[in-house]
Amino acid sequence: MEDKITLDHGSGGKMSHELMENVVLPYFANPMLDKLDDGAIFSLQGMRIAFTTDSYTVDPIFFPGGDIGALAVNGTVNDICMCGASPLMMSAALIIEEGFPMDDLKRILESMKESAIVAGVKIVTGDTKVVPHGAADKIFINTSGIGTIPHHIDVSGSNAKPGDKVIVSGTIADHGITILAGREGISLKSDIKSDTAALNYLVKRLFSRSRDVHTLRDPTRGGVGTSLNEIAQKSNVGIRIYEDKLPVKDEVKGACEILGLDPMYIANEGKLIAVVAAKDAEKVLNGLREDKLGVDAEIIGEVVEDNQGKVFMETAIGGTRIVDMLHGEQLPRIC
Amino acid sequence: MEDKITLDHGSGGKMSHELMENVVLPYFANPMLDKLDDGAIFSLQGMRIAFTTDSYTVDPIFFPGGDIGALAVNGTVNDICMCGASPLMMSAALIIEEGFPMDDLKRILESMKESAIVAGVKIVTGDTKVVPHGAADKIFINTSGIGTIPHHIDVSGSNAKPGDKVIVSGTIADHGITILAGREGISLKSDIKSDTAALNYLVKRLFSRSRDVHTLRDPTRGGVGTSLNEIAQKSNVGIRIYEDKLPVKDEVKGACEILGLDPMYIANEGKLIAVVAAKDAEKVLNGLREDKLGVDAEIIGEVVEDNQGKVFMETAIGGTRIVDMLHGEQLPRIC
Repeated sequence: MEDKITLDHGSGGKMSHELMENVVLPYFANPMLDKLDDGAIFSLQGMRIAFTTDSYTVDPIFFPGGDIGALAVNGTVNDICMCGASPLMMSAALIIEEGFPMDDLKRILESMKESAIVAGVKIVTGDTKVVPHGAADKIFINTSGIGTIPHHIDVSGSNAKPGDKVIVSGTIADHGITILAGREGISLKSDIKSDTAALNYLVKRLFSRSRDVHTLRDPTRGGVGTSLNEIAQKSNVGIRIYEDKLPVKDEVKGACEILGLDPMYIANEGKLIAVVAAKDAEKVLNGLREDKLGVDAEIIGEVVEDNQGKVFMETAIGGTRIVDMLHGEQLPRIC
Repeated sequence: MEDKITLDHGSGGKMSHELMENVVLPYFANPMLDKLDDGAIFSLQGMRIAFTTDSYTVDPIFFPGGDIGALAVNGTVNDICMCGASPLMMSAALIIEEGFPMDDLKRILESMKESAIVAGVKIVTGDTKVVPHGAADKIFINTSGIGTIPHHIDVSGSNAKPGDKVIVSGTIADHGITILAGREGISLKSDIKSDTAALNYLVKRLFSRSRDVHTLRDPTRGGVGTSLNEIAQKSNVGIRIYEDKLPVKDEVKGACEILGLDPMYIANEGKLIAVVAAKDAEKVLNGLREDKLGVDAEIIGEVVEDNQGKVFMETAIGGTRIVDMLHGEQLPRIC
């Protein structure tokens, strides 16, 4: 283990998991945190409650398709949904650098407000800290959220079962490529934009089509590749995916090729992975496709008994390759 | 209104309140947020839940009496308590600067663990972001918390009533003076240390002595002076306090005099203000004094009908002065 924190520790990939498992968890071990799902689930007088938190440090703070405010609201809504819960209440805590333009703050607040309205959540408590110029870069936002889980729903990263189908709700890597382009000043000569969106209504639709949704994940930091690895490891199963089934926009594919990046590891902010019983997979797929956030949904693979803890991809040219967890850091401050 | 965010906006004083009321609240107006208590209170299937959030950006991160980790856990425990709730669950979200020493991280995590054990809360969910060197100063921690409020308890900043007594649970300004000394490298030739502590057992003790506790506040940023002003304004009452009743350690008083600071505006991290029905004030005071966190508790004043929205102090030399809300920023990154 390194003696200093590196950017790799924040990647959402392998190094993040090692930091979590070797450094953080030993201090706070409890059944809820150990599950390492997108949020904690606990019972309060018979009610199951999901509780999540996430800090947003994205750079740039404004980008095509959204901004740090929209990201902060949608991201926490999505983390709550991935626990199978309906989001209810949210907190918002801002750390602002001295000298930050008031108009930018208002633009971000407006965006948080609109995102909260769209998702149907209430921002009920907050905090604002200002740090001297240079002690933080512009603005960081933490949102935490609370939701309730209906009695019949039980999703977890450890619930995937051999035979299940793996569904992704739309094109992958849009958010990460947008941020990278914005930050590096790369003109992609296209209209790629962040997919940031609240997924709660899409999740509702999904549960209306199947009572056998076993796992939900939003593949943010670390991308689809890392999320699938988490599921394979926690559920102790193999996951086989088909390269030609992966929905990737042509312009995103092109940008990835030019930049030498793998879309499997690029962050998404408005997509979900659902692991669903095979019998319901087509029904769920069709349900997702009826929603504007799910029109590009695809069944991208299945859960298998062998290769436990591993993800492997049948490539378009007929080979097979292991899809490992993201190791280093591709893009710091992606969300 | 300024066109840029200034340090004054983060003071917890008048400028913070103006930012909140003129900029933030118009976007998120709802009955819970409008109350501007230390947390939101809402009902979920008949259960009253308190939900709070706070980010900690204190500099230095280690100081006599505690560190940013202890502060982050105790601060959120206290915000939950100030809603009249028993703290149950907590989230912890870390923003870490690239290059931060792993040993310092472990020291902070250890301190969070110990503080959580002392307070009897569970840290059940978390998040870690790493930002490039220079994009944040060392480490920022956000904690959000959930607690439940017993049915018979109803405390709020707007519940203070004329005739009530104002109690402070111990000596004031310890935390702020400690941080200031640590930051400026001032040797105070004394053992002043931060009072960071979880107040939940003290609050329990308080409620066991009286069912007529009307308001609770932990006077952090902005100090006792600002908290009392908040209560006076929200409850639409006057508050009269007696300078000679204010518990201030001699060495803190001395440091304040040298530095030209007023202890009324210096942050506390392990003290509470309770506004209690006069009939119960002595009982509550004696109860607090039985706890090691309340040995220096004092009745420092009372709520009056006139001078609505104002706090005034009978000074030791027999005069009267208005105690306004803190206007500018005395000490950035105090918590």
